[in-house]
Amino acid sequence: MQAVYNIAEICHRHGITDVILSPGSRSAPLTLAFARHPAYRGRLRVVPDERAAAFIALGIAQATRRPVVLVCTSGTAGLNYAPAVAEAYFQQIPLLILTADRPPEWIDQLDGQTIRQRNLYGAHAKGAFDFPADTAHPDAKWHSERIINEAINLTMAGPAGPVQVNVPLREPFYPKAGEEMGYEADVRIIQQDAATYAGTKRQTYQQLKDAKRLLVVVGQHPAEAKLTAALTRFAAVFGVPVVCDVISNVANPVPLQESVTSSPYFPDSSSLCPLPAEQFVTQHDIFLAGLSTAQKEELRPDFLITCGQSLISKSLKLFLREAKPTQHWHIQAEGAVADTFRTLTRIVRSDPTEFFSRWTPAELPARDTLLPWQQAEAAATQSLTSFFETESHPFNEFSAMRQALTLLPEATALHLANSMAVRYANILGLPQQRQVKVFANRGTSGIDGCTSTAVGAALAQPGRPVVLLTGDVAFFYDRNAFWHNYPTPNLRVVLFNNHGGGIFRLIDGPRQQPELDEFFETTQALTAENTARDFKLRYFPVSSFDELDAALPVFFAAETGAAILEIFTDSKTNAAFFEEYRKAVKLAFS
Amino acid sequence: MQAVYNIAEICHRHGITDVILSPGSRSAPLTLAFARHPAYRGRLRVVPDERAAAFIALGIAQATRRPVVLVCTSGTAGLNYAPAVAEAYFQQIPLLILTADRPPEWIDQLDGQTIRQRNLYGAHAKGAFDFPADTAHPDAKWHSERIINEAINLTMAGPAGPVQVNVPLREPFYPKAGEEMGYEADVRIIQQDAATYAGTKRQTYQQLKDAKRLLVVVGQHPAEAKLTAALTRFAAVFGVPVVCDVISNVANPVPLQESVTSSPYFPDSSSLCPLPAEQFVTQHDIFLAGLSTAQKEELRPDFLITCGQSLISKSLKLFLREAKPTQHWHIQAEGAVADTFRTLTRIVRSDPTEFFSRWTPAELPARDTLLPWQQAEAAATQSLTSFFETESHPFNEFSAMRQALTLLPEATALHLANSMAVRYANILGLPQQRQVKVFANRGTSGIDGCTSTAVGAALAQPGRPVVLLTGDVAFFYDRNAFWHNYPTPNLRVVLFNNHGGGIFRLIDGPRQQPELDEFFETTQALTAENTARDFKLRYFPVSSFDELDAALPVFFAAETGAAILEIFTDSKTNAAFFEEYRKAVKLAFS
Repeated sequence: MQAVYNIAEICHRHGITDVILSPGSRSAPLTLAFARHPAYRGRLRVVPDERAAAFIALGIAQATRRPVVLVCTSGTAGLNYAPAVAEAYFQQIPLLILTADRPPEWIDQLDGQTIRQRNLYGAHAKGAFDFPADTAHPDAKWHSERIINEAINLTMAGPAGPVQVNVPLREPFYPKAGEEMGYEADVRIIQQDAATYAGTKRQTYQQLKDAKRLLVVVGQHPAEAKLTAALTRFAAVFGVPVVCDVISNVANPVPLQESVTSSPYFPDSSSLCPLPAEQFVTQHDIFLAGLSTAQKEELRPDFLITCGQSLISKSLKLFLREAKPTQHWHIQAEGAVADTFRTLTRIVRSDPTEFFSRWTPAELPARDTLLPWQQAEAAATQSLTSFFETESHPFNEFSAMRQALTLLPEATALHLANSMAVRYANILGLPQQRQVKVFANRGTSGIDGCTSTAVGAALAQPGRPVVLLTGDVAFFYDRNAFWHNYPTPNLRVVLFNNHGGGIFRLIDGPRQQPELDEFFETTQALTAENTARDFKLRYFPVSSFDELDAALPVFFAAETGAAILEIFTDSKTNAAFFEEYRKAVKLAFS
Repeated sequence: MQAVYNIAEICHRHGITDVILSPGSRSAPLTLAFARHPAYRGRLRVVPDERAAAFIALGIAQATRRPVVLVCTSGTAGLNYAPAVAEAYFQQIPLLILTADRPPEWIDQLDGQTIRQRNLYGAHAKGAFDFPADTAHPDAKWHSERIINEAINLTMAGPAGPVQVNVPLREPFYPKAGEEMGYEADVRIIQQDAATYAGTKRQTYQQLKDAKRLLVVVGQHPAEAKLTAALTRFAAVFGVPVVCDVISNVANPVPLQESVTSSPYFPDSSSLCPLPAEQFVTQHDIFLAGLSTAQKEELRPDFLITCGQSLISKSLKLFLREAKPTQHWHIQAEGAVADTFRTLTRIVRSDPTEFFSRWTPAELPARDTLLPWQQAEAAATQSLTSFFETESHPFNEFSAMRQALTLLPEATALHLANSMAVRYANILGLPQQRQVKVFANRGTSGIDGCTSTAVGAALAQPGRPVVLLTGDVAFFYDRNAFWHNYPTPNLRVVLFNNHGGGIFRLIDGPRQQPELDEFFETTQALTAENTARDFKLRYFPVSSFDELDAALPVFFAAETGAAILEIFTDSKTNAAFFEEYRKAVKLAFS
């Protein structure tokens, strides 16, 4: 088992700090390897439901930007990781998945907890390695060490992602009584340096110089102050609008030098990057849906520059697909590039921050394609504000979320669940100057692990408030996120409970069908009260604006501890209100 | 969408009666196809958590012996089916999985809920089909109908199993207002007849005729009175011991002509097959572990005949691997055969019932290899009884399960969860003459879907009591089994709560490690009280023999409705008691 024990040592030497384990018998040697390694004391955590375990690992890796190790036993255990593995693959989050297995000769022999684990995640892992079943031969030992190095390096090689190592294990699994168990000091470590990208030669940029109506669009991106700063400068100096969804993390500045492990309740404001310039556009999801053809023509770019991953705003995607800019450059250092708007003409292999920082006014003339975008942004912001402020409204989830967002604690890690939470938040935007970082599982946009991901984030950053905005279907789907023994006093769950898949009442199509109630929205009766009791979370149920007003400050207060704020609304009222809101926006643009 | 709507019609014409749906937007055309088909009224059920949904479908298919359709939306939804799909694959349960998808050109374009769904279950599906994205061309329409026929036929072609059809769907998903939606009467139906197996020629059976010490071992098998009858006759006429685990379903007779959908609380006893002869061995898990080498030699077969799937008893597997019979025939009509004991010499392609029925006393001489097996069985039964009856015991789960089993209602469908429940029950055996059918997810032996499977069984057989025996880790893992709107008044969950993975304290290896508490057994604090409240299940908590005695009759009574009986025990007491029991058995054989 020495080669198996060494896995923990190699992980440690590569700087991996966190391990999530789901207990099992076959995986015992891996359990012992990490449990007895001094580096993993207090950082090896046990989560019994593998589905939740893997999303918790994803949440930790999202927060720390380091690979997290997952350890499970043989059989279907590893299959329960599959949803989080796919999310990690598309969101480019590094995970090292160690699946314990029977030795190869026992596969398909009707032994318990035995499936076909080789390459278990198929197209959704960056790689799959078979750890040798026998490591007595020196070549096999070399192989075993090389595999772990390769797997760890592959999790991080751009773009990052999940990698499986299947570890066949023969009995006996445990050291004999009195047997010493240790780690070899001379295990091989193969380091990997990040690639550097010089980017394409200057002369190819003549096209960019000639562009008339330039537009920058930023997809999902981890919060990085340097990118915000580079984009802010680029937009201001060259007069270019920058369109960003709430998950782009560029319109809400975070401290420039912040370490992810520090306690940033009150970060030093002098290190904040400047407020984004007025060139930033965040209300596009609202106004693009309501524009006339002529108005759209005014906004139409002939040159589009994009960076980052996916976008939430469906109206932005449709607008750009229709707009058909002549040039579309996507700035991405490594990995496959999507042709999201069917307009891609050039892939620029460069870090986006470098790309946007490199231009001098001499090289790139300033232009003004800003005005129509700024006007639209202003009109949308205005209509949003006046809509909420001038009318009297029934209690509904859209208004409730707006209220909750305004009171977000400083430096919150904000987790937005699929499906409606992330959409509402993208419309409402974030409070200014609050240094909020936004996370959402938009790699696959599943509802299956949103809570677990937030729990992982809370475990990884005990000094930072972690707030999850979620709906009832996503919440109850993933209740096992709380089923473990690790406190998360910094976690706050804002649960919008409309007792069903309310999204189906909001989108065109299902809401016109007679099957809406039974087969789309599908009423579910649960409330979170018993869940809160089960997991000893403080519980705040509210059903009116006044109750919400009263609850929010107590709920968010640092001393409250882990808590659920359950906001009860009526699905039909929500749908009617959102419809009214859509009408108001249309009116503002007509 | 006509081709998509026709899927429901083709399923109906193939005799498929049940559909489990997890709501989604992309899957809407499939939803409408089944929701509007008259054959599926009341048989299309909605379960939001896909992991639970798939195990519920598996439970229905187990009970009805017919394929069940699963419908989910695009993205990670289908990955949550993966654990149940693997279980279905190895347990040979037919499932037709319809995964809605984006059309192929939109894969990897950063659109929401988009993963790589082709062949999503890899080595754990019998087949994976790509439904055409466009069916306007007559050839594509023919293709679409053929695919569904092929997929359904493949689910049932022996051995049965899960089949995926990935269905790419283009917008619009919904019929326009006023648009009629229907099913074509002339859809193609391709029927498939079961293969018939004449078996190998008589002359090859000379070996069997010459065998001296013949032993029959039956693995997991659905309850079939005909097989029990054939084995009973074979064992009695030829003097052969038949060893069967509790999941073999041959030692507990069920009515000969029973229809799975009838209401068999009080089946007609005249149609019962005869009681199994005294040649049946069920206590082997106990006595094989305690035997001396000389005693094992007495039991050693030189000719082994097996049928069925996996075995629970580890001591039986070890005994047979060590025994090395000269001949080992496995009787199985179709499909891959495992070499479970490393002794396989011949695969006989025949239905087991036919095989065991074909022999006349003239062809096969009677022999007597029975005596040592019968003696061991008698001694084990005796030691079990006297152990429980003569000593005074602390309250513990092993004794509590024995007590619960004796009161099982007539004709119960008994679901045994992994990991300890199925092991305890295999030792304790079933009450005689109660026509109990036993189910367990021993295809992969996962804990992940045991409750959902029992819920599926309860939905499929409303007239039959369904009793689940389970532990706390399996139970809380799969709480979403109850998260839907379908009552299961015939379901009784007996939950043995020792607040952790008690199995690790019972098996050698982990119980000797200092990490036992934290990283193997892993205390979990939940009780089922809040779960019972959430899902409006009657709840009976007990902590002593007297409380259990008082609760059992009320709990099992038909008028109680769905209920949880939570039996609280202490893990250390359980371990100590089981150890005492092991010692007592050893003593009986020394």
